[in-house]
Amino acid sequence: MRISGLAAVTGVPLATVKYYLREGLLHPGRQTSATQARYDETHVARLRLVRALLDVGGLSIASARGVLSCLDPGDVFEALGRTQEELPPRVTRDVDLSAAREAIAALGWQVPDESAALRQLAVAMQAVREVGLPLTPDRLQAYAKAAHLVAEQEIDRMPQTSVADALTYAVVGTVLYEPVLLALRRLAHQDVSARRFASST
Amino acid sequence: MRISGLAAVTGVPLATVKYYLREGLLHPGRQTSATQARYDETHVARLRLVRALLDVGGLSIASARGVLSCLDPGDVFEALGRTQEELPPRVTRDVDLSAAREAIAALGWQVPDESAALRQLAVAMQAVREVGLPLTPDRLQAYAKAAHLVAEQEIDRMPQTSVADALTYAVVGTVLYEPVLLALRRLAHQDVSARRFASST
Repeated sequence: MRISGLAAVTGVPLATVKYYLREGLLHPGRQTSATQARYDETHVARLRLVRALLDVGGLSIASARGVLSCLDPGDVFEALGRTQEELPPRVTRDVDLSAAREAIAALGWQVPDESAALRQLAVAMQAVREVGLPLTPDRLQAYAKAAHLVAEQEIDRMPQTSVADALTYAVVGTVLYEPVLLALRRLAHQDVSARRFASST
Repeated sequence: MRISGLAAVTGVPLATVKYYLREGLLHPGRQTSATQARYDETHVARLRLVRALLDVGGLSIASARGVLSCLDPGDVFEALGRTQEELPPRVTRDVDLSAAREAIAALGWQVPDESAALRQLAVAMQAVREVGLPLTPDRLQAYAKAAHLVAEQEIDRMPQTSVADALTYAVVGTVLYEPVLLALRRLAHQDVSARRFASST
């Protein structure tokens, strides 16, 4: 199909499609003349992915490009690690990792001594404490239990159909399952509030 | 203290402090002359909160202002609901809620028929499905179980010291505990990968 067809099929405005092409988020079409190119199903799929990463995942253009660059064939777990480095919140400043390391050690988790997620945890824990919110060991344990439950399900159900499928799942899933979990957390707040409130009257 | 003292104590650049004052994120100091104002501990606490919401919570100035406006004295659960409306991802467009409603009904949760979090869930579920990632009922159940575990802990441990403390906890905690949970999910991926990988060799 032509670029106008690609825009029509996906519902993405033509100017936006051209912008993604310029920004390298979308791979070029097959050139059929000096001014014409053809696009196929791979472009439709990639466009849907780009929109999901930007709109639902809330990524910037630069972050989305970083995440998409992890989709090159290679080792799945290595790609997962690279994705974590590319994703916000990117922690570039120096941060004291000792509290986060201690928390992970208390959980008995096997994680690399230096990882983007460990820095993210350190910053997140520090922010909670700085504004005076409680972060007791049993609170951390509840979060850790919930997170591990989710991660086991996610890793165990990784598609085995092809390396490309597994990669897409690992890389894109890191971004796109997050909003599902967060929305459910907020809905669970409403459910728990409703129950506690009903039982106290 | 003067505004320069406020900047020094919090480590926030003076120009940034002035910007937050202009944007209404920080309440004005007590005017002592036409050109001087005094700031106190409430300003220090609010500045730390603003920085945490912007840097760690990843909120925009407008979102942070909306969240902070929920900190006026009032009903805690009502404030929690208003916070959810103010927080990203703000879903303003029409979205088909039926799949999200079905999922919540299957869980037996009591949530309002129209809530920001329900719209967020609908958008998040649709995005996952559009890019072809799996979202089976057992996957949703795993997320829901994890989310409920977290929400129970969060609601049950709400500070009872004062309404103001409970409000801060409900409003700010919705934003600032999220990064802790997400960082732990990514670390759990690493732990689960390490274990599965070790046991398969």
